[in-house]
Amino acid sequence: MFRLTKLNSNVFQSINNSFGKRFISSSTPSDKFFLNSSALVIEKTKEPKKKQTDKTKLVFGKDFSDHMAVVEWDDEKGWGVPKITAYQNLSLPPSASVFHYALECFEGMKAYKDKDGNVRLFRPMENMKRFNDSAKRICLPTFNKEGCLDIIKKLVKLDQDWIPEGKGYSLYLRPTLIATQKTLGVGAPHSAMMFVICSPVGPYYPEGFKPVRLLADDKYVRAWVGGSGNYKLGSNYAPTIFPQLDAAKKGYQQVLWLLNDQITEVGTMNMFVLWNNNQDELELITPPLSEGTILPGVTRDSILKLAHQWGDFKVSEKNFTMSELAKAIREGRVKEAFGAGTAAIVSPIKSINYKGEEYPIPINEAFGAGPVTKKFADTIMGIQYGEIKSDWSMVI
Amino acid sequence: MFRLTKLNSNVFQSINNSFGKRFISSSTPSDKFFLNSSALVIEKTKEPKKKQTDKTKLVFGKDFSDHMAVVEWDDEKGWGVPKITAYQNLSLPPSASVFHYALECFEGMKAYKDKDGNVRLFRPMENMKRFNDSAKRICLPTFNKEGCLDIIKKLVKLDQDWIPEGKGYSLYLRPTLIATQKTLGVGAPHSAMMFVICSPVGPYYPEGFKPVRLLADDKYVRAWVGGSGNYKLGSNYAPTIFPQLDAAKKGYQQVLWLLNDQITEVGTMNMFVLWNNNQDELELITPPLSEGTILPGVTRDSILKLAHQWGDFKVSEKNFTMSELAKAIREGRVKEAFGAGTAAIVSPIKSINYKGEEYPIPINEAFGAGPVTKKFADTIMGIQYGEIKSDWSMVI
Repeated sequence: MFRLTKLNSNVFQSINNSFGKRFISSSTPSDKFFLNSSALVIEKTKEPKKKQTDKTKLVFGKDFSDHMAVVEWDDEKGWGVPKITAYQNLSLPPSASVFHYALECFEGMKAYKDKDGNVRLFRPMENMKRFNDSAKRICLPTFNKEGCLDIIKKLVKLDQDWIPEGKGYSLYLRPTLIATQKTLGVGAPHSAMMFVICSPVGPYYPEGFKPVRLLADDKYVRAWVGGSGNYKLGSNYAPTIFPQLDAAKKGYQQVLWLLNDQITEVGTMNMFVLWNNNQDELELITPPLSEGTILPGVTRDSILKLAHQWGDFKVSEKNFTMSELAKAIREGRVKEAFGAGTAAIVSPIKSINYKGEEYPIPINEAFGAGPVTKKFADTIMGIQYGEIKSDWSMVI
Repeated sequence: MFRLTKLNSNVFQSINNSFGKRFISSSTPSDKFFLNSSALVIEKTKEPKKKQTDKTKLVFGKDFSDHMAVVEWDDEKGWGVPKITAYQNLSLPPSASVFHYALECFEGMKAYKDKDGNVRLFRPMENMKRFNDSAKRICLPTFNKEGCLDIIKKLVKLDQDWIPEGKGYSLYLRPTLIATQKTLGVGAPHSAMMFVICSPVGPYYPEGFKPVRLLADDKYVRAWVGGSGNYKLGSNYAPTIFPQLDAAKKGYQQVLWLLNDQITEVGTMNMFVLWNNNQDELELITPPLSEGTILPGVTRDSILKLAHQWGDFKVSEKNFTMSELAKAIREGRVKEAFGAGTAAIVSPIKSINYKGEEYPIPINEAFGAGPVTKKFADTIMGIQYGEIKSDWSMVI
């Protein structure tokens, strides 16, 4: 009976595997999609690196901590033994499909050190869930979220001296999953590698908010219905760099991405507007996830949940166009606008260029952001650094 | 005067470089975007590999020849010294932006051995042009096309014993360009690497054409207006694998990609239909390049040029919808349909599933393809193997 169960189970996995459906969750260690974090091997570095002593000089994603986590997968043996090793180069055949077909996805999250010296993560299971969803979308192997998070926790604990102290400082974590398949046929990879690297980073706004000017882009489109803009895939980033540089050349810090005039995202962040809507209600509005064109940001979700909890204004996840927004700005109905993401938490917007015209958005001069924008930033940061008690902050 | 010209020229390059505009073509070796193939260094392998002795067992992109070409670029020194070395792994930091943001593009081309033992390429400058266009779209460094082709020619000459003999056999060439930038900020890379690898391949149809069944997909969209579907970027491939496997599960060999019901591509090929159109004219139709949603295939272009030359039917590059095609099939007006690409030249289509209904397309039982489809295949293959005289075939 046991043999039969085993056999069936294997066939089922193999069928699903062939068709890229690797979302069968199982807690049995024999499962090909089970990441066994308890088997983790730690090989400490013999040559610890020098840390940047002046933490104000930290540049996002430039320095990396002493260690990295690596675990390989193949479709015969499943996930291998996870390792923490010295931060080092990857050696891959030039035919590896990550170099050709963008079979890669990633996450962005941070480890914070609170006043008492505790190390904290912010809603990390949300990142694990999205990481898994991204992997599935491009036929990379999925994994048990707990196993992946456990490996990340162990890596962060080992390299906790790399977390710069002080509010706004953190260790940026970059879990990444790539296809290592070494043949050129376009298809689901038979081998893959997950790795996690850590980079000490400073506050996004070391001297207070710096509101940004946006260029609403009607030439380039970031994501569309039927595409994959709602997953954190490498493929969503490469095509956005040229338009972003084009906007920079014209003096705008970010692109406001449109899809048939609908507002979708701002730069690599989710977009929020606080306005008096057509019904003269004070409303916080952000584009909905339902059409698959918006990245489900963890900060986005946190802002929505806080807003619902506060009850100070109507909260809507629904489409709105740049024309509607321009009209509302012209009529003085827009109170605040900001981008939201892991790097900055919130990024206040002071103006939008749309079809050659500038649309200014109010900014409180004292803070460099509107009061609601600032309240979101203060609350989320307070939770991240353990100053505000919340289930969202996990001490590790 | 010379100094001033130099200075201006450098400033100009630096400005364009910052904004991703690296399309300045220059023939001065000091140019950052000049690939100096005359400086090529050849380091022959000391351990030549065993070749597959049974050429009928060759699998696309599985075996690779003894050597590869590599050349690195950085935005201070420009393109470095090109090298031909033993086929070997690449060593890259885990932070390299090719792993995170899909900063990668490639080409697909073939080297053929004709009856007299000459080695031939097919319209290789077309690939060089597209390779450059792809690089520019994602802010990777551009290069002089002649320099890149010269390196490829030298690689193919060195590894010419790897070109399997016989019509239909060839050495598949994969020029690839990746960002090696080792910081995580999303932006134009300051360093990159170009490499070329070679894989001996057999005929796409060893035993005559095998017409395919397509699933017209209205759920997933490959490319959209304002996107980057008209460039050969890695990012256009990853999101297509899941839909392709989904189609395979349902018994279809390829996805017919739609955009608002408009036909765009078939699998990784361009789509052609020969039909009696609404005006009862015999017409070869393929979607146009003007909207930026179609890859400008070299085979596509060759077919269009041959068709114009033959003058046997009307030739149109214009949009047509799946509904129109379904109606035409129902009315018996569709004569032939096929995909076109480097791998297969042409791939005859025998049926399309659209909204749950099967639409059969005539296939000549004797050939496994319609007569026009077969004539395109025979002509192009004849040119590729030097049996038909043409400027399109370049002896190297």
